Amino acid sequence: MSDYQYDLVIIGSGPAGQKAAICAAKMRKRVAVTDKRNMLGGCSLHTGTIPSKTLREAILYLSGFTQRSFYGKGYSVKDHISVQDLSFRVQAVVKRELEVVRSQLKRNDVTAISGAARFVDPHTIEVATETGPQQLTAANVLIACGTRPAHNPSIPLDGIRIIDSDQILTAAMIPRELIVVGAGVIGLEYASMLTALNVKVTLIDQRPDPLEFVDAEILDTLYYHMRRNGAVFRFGEKVTKVEIDDRDRVVALLESGKRIHGEGLLYTVGRQSNTDLLNIEAAGLVTDERGRIQVNEGFQTRVPHIYAAGDVIGFPSLSATAMEQGRLASNHMFGVPCAVRPELFPFGIYTIPEISMVGKTEQQLTAEKIPYEFGVAKYEELARAQMIGDETGLLKLLFDPDSKKLLGVHVIGERAAEILHIGQAVLAMGGTIEYFRDTVFNYPTLAEAFKVAALDGLNKL
Amino acid sequence: MSDYQYDLVIIGSGPAGQKAAICAAKMRKRVAVTDKRNMLGGCSLHTGTIPSKTLREAILYLSGFTQRSFYGKGYSVKDHISVQDLSFRVQAVVKRELEVVRSQLKRNDVTAISGAARFVDPHTIEVATETGPQQLTAANVLIACGTRPAHNPSIPLDGIRIIDSDQILTAAMIPRELIVVGAGVIGLEYASMLTALNVKVTLIDQRPDPLEFVDAEILDTLYYHMRRNGAVFRFGEKVTKVEIDDRDRVVALLESGKRIHGEGLLYTVGRQSNTDLLNIEAAGLVTDERGRIQVNEGFQTRVPHIYAAGDVIGFPSLSATAMEQGRLASNHMFGVPCAVRPELFPFGIYTIPEISMVGKTEQQLTAEKIPYEFGVAKYEELARAQMIGDETGLLKLLFDPDSKKLLGVHVIGERAAEILHIGQAVLAMGGTIEYFRDTVFNYPTLAEAFKVAALDGLNKL
Repeated sequence: MSDYQYDLVIIGSGPAGQKAAICAAKMRKRVAVTDKRNMLGGCSLHTGTIPSKTLREAILYLSGFTQRSFYGKGYSVKDHISVQDLSFRVQAVVKRELEVVRSQLKRNDVTAISGAARFVDPHTIEVATETGPQQLTAANVLIACGTRPAHNPSIPLDGIRIIDSDQILTAAMIPRELIVVGAGVIGLEYASMLTALNVKVTLIDQRPDPLEFVDAEILDTLYYHMRRNGAVFRFGEKVTKVEIDDRDRVVALLESGKRIHGEGLLYTVGRQSNTDLLNIEAAGLVTDERGRIQVNEGFQTRVPHIYAAGDVIGFPSLSATAMEQGRLASNHMFGVPCAVRPELFPFGIYTIPEISMVGKTEQQLTAEKIPYEFGVAKYEELARAQMIGDETGLLKLLFDPDSKKLLGVHVIGERAAEILHIGQAVLAMGGTIEYFRDTVFNYPTLAEAFKVAALDGLNKL
Repeated sequence: MSDYQYDLVIIGSGPAGQKAAICAAKMRKRVAVTDKRNMLGGCSLHTGTIPSKTLREAILYLSGFTQRSFYGKGYSVKDHISVQDLSFRVQAVVKRELEVVRSQLKRNDVTAISGAARFVDPHTIEVATETGPQQLTAANVLIACGTRPAHNPSIPLDGIRIIDSDQILTAAMIPRELIVVGAGVIGLEYASMLTALNVKVTLIDQRPDPLEFVDAEILDTLYYHMRRNGAVFRFGEKVTKVEIDDRDRVVALLESGKRIHGEGLLYTVGRQSNTDLLNIEAAGLVTDERGRIQVNEGFQTRVPHIYAAGDVIGFPSLSATAMEQGRLASNHMFGVPCAVRPELFPFGIYTIPEISMVGKTEQQLTAEKIPYEFGVAKYEELARAQMIGDETGLLKLLFDPDSKKLLGVHVIGERAAEILHIGQAVLAMGGTIEYFRDTVFNYPTLAEAFKVAALDGLNKL
């Protein structure tokens, strides 16, 4: 038994922190998790993944979006969708999920301590609890403190009309015209949700090709459908100034001289790490210019007993990967060998339509000079897609034309993030696309897309 | 080149016939498909899978069924759901799907001939086309003629209040109280759909345990939820007579003396093969008492150049397996070796909630004296399930406690038939449940249930 109070103290109770805690607790380690007051569950639960994905479901449902193929473009379940209609559902899900997190930690005997944490020394953390400061000593520490929206002096956020992605959830109204600055995952997700509510969205990004890790054909499909829903893209354009004009509109001035106006502006460029709040120098650590911490493949920082996982270590900043990083960090610190196969990590992007991918993109394969063939299934050919009103989806398999081994799976459309895992399993086991040809799929399902795409691909050989 | 007009003539254009035709056509065979007038696509398209699953989606949507966890038990999108509201969507999907079938056959140069077919001799089939009888000669024949609802003299069908499953789609009204006789897949699917519409359903079956191929825990879960929605089960009870009583109600008299009454009765006991319409003796074939044709593992009848596939050969009578049988029959007749692994065939049952399974059930493993352990994920623990309002789903993994190899996957709940295929891939490749533990799943998805269930199972060891 060590002299420390805890075998592991975790700063941050988001996906990385939770899974690290439970993993260590299952090894019968003494674990404490800290988070700021009323922030158990982290950003993922309070301002990130959970609320935004619930909002998405609520919008899809109330807007009648998927029903429009039956009832026409003007159809909606509810005529005037208010912020209350949406936030009611978000609050219900957040509350339920908070219970799930709380009971999971409790069931596993993880001590949850509420209050902002800061390092006193590399093994001591002080938490500002409601009843005063409390010092915890720890054999190991995991920093999973997450990030917050980055700000920019040229974007004068007012929390009402000019807002960041944390503030969107408490917005008082849905603007008719919205400028979104930043076309990363967060910007695209919100922009596509709002287009489904018939908001006129203009999306601006300095980068000519913002989501370059996504397969180009899939992205083009997303942009195509967002444009059909009224979105306007201004990529490769820099915002120099944001102001309120004399007609009381929000105006973004671009370097190219364009003036984009709207009722509101959402700023989603970059995330700032929360490490600046941790007195991290006392731990002997340094961060990069955005506050990120560098780790090795075991998620260890340069101070061997201090680990970091989740958004604080950077890309891809997804809840799913954060959970895995947390679990891997715990296993590493307690000497449990663990195979990591980052090439099998899936990406789920909850735009409308939804995007998911695993393995290589066409761009990557081309850059790496790996020859490939492809097979495509259009959702419109699937009976299930017709039934649920999604005629725009697409599943693409990339494979080796000689061995027929699967190299990548790219899906856009309903349930993309679910069915992707069928392809992920085949990829993980080194399977060929003949597996999909030879497999019986439930009918009618979207999963059938794998068979249709495999047949398409095999016909090309 | 043979002297026959066609390398393959197919009787029936349902899932088995279509896939057999396309498979043979891709081998550059001359293929003709026949079906009765206006029946291209077969029962699956006109009275079976496609309309019933579209009806299910329409009911789920219009009844607001999945939204009730947010808005309360009394919620519905539309207050008075009429037959027209439902059939409108069914017709739209059937029409689209008919186009898909037609264009697929055309693209593959398959000749479609409309009219009832009958054997003249083992190599000659006469089709009663609109312009008169047309004789086709064929080197090979595939019988994929399907089935129709079986009738019973003690159930006086009138097509209005006392109906079979073909007539339900053209029913003039939705009864407030419905008696369903027969709790097989079809009976349960319609019964559960109607309970979602708040119809009071009484389900009667002579068998004490009608769907014995389904895992008992999954079935119990289905029955539990159907009962909560008002369904009453009378299993192990025989209907002796059905009549209209003096208060103009439909009454089913049971052997036990009970009198069950309702506004309507749906009879779904058994299916009768369409082979009686084919003059099958001229082909040198015989059928069993229900008109079914026996085949070997290559789907060959006792007349070697005549094959049979789909519902006409009996269990499981699912579109998905029929497609595979059709493909396998074509491969067999043209000498293409084909691996068949029936143990990997999935089952999809589109009740509310949806059921899907692959591999062994607990009953089977026990009977075969194979020791197993199980791991369960409750949907209520999944963030995605909360977002879409399904808190009742369940995924169960059965696995070998020593090798940890996956033995069976059983799911009830939203998207069950989709996510099942993740488990099917692992089962096919002989994987262990550690695969699910070590895999990153998109968050939030229902696919995560595999990880939760695997962790639950591994914790039991």
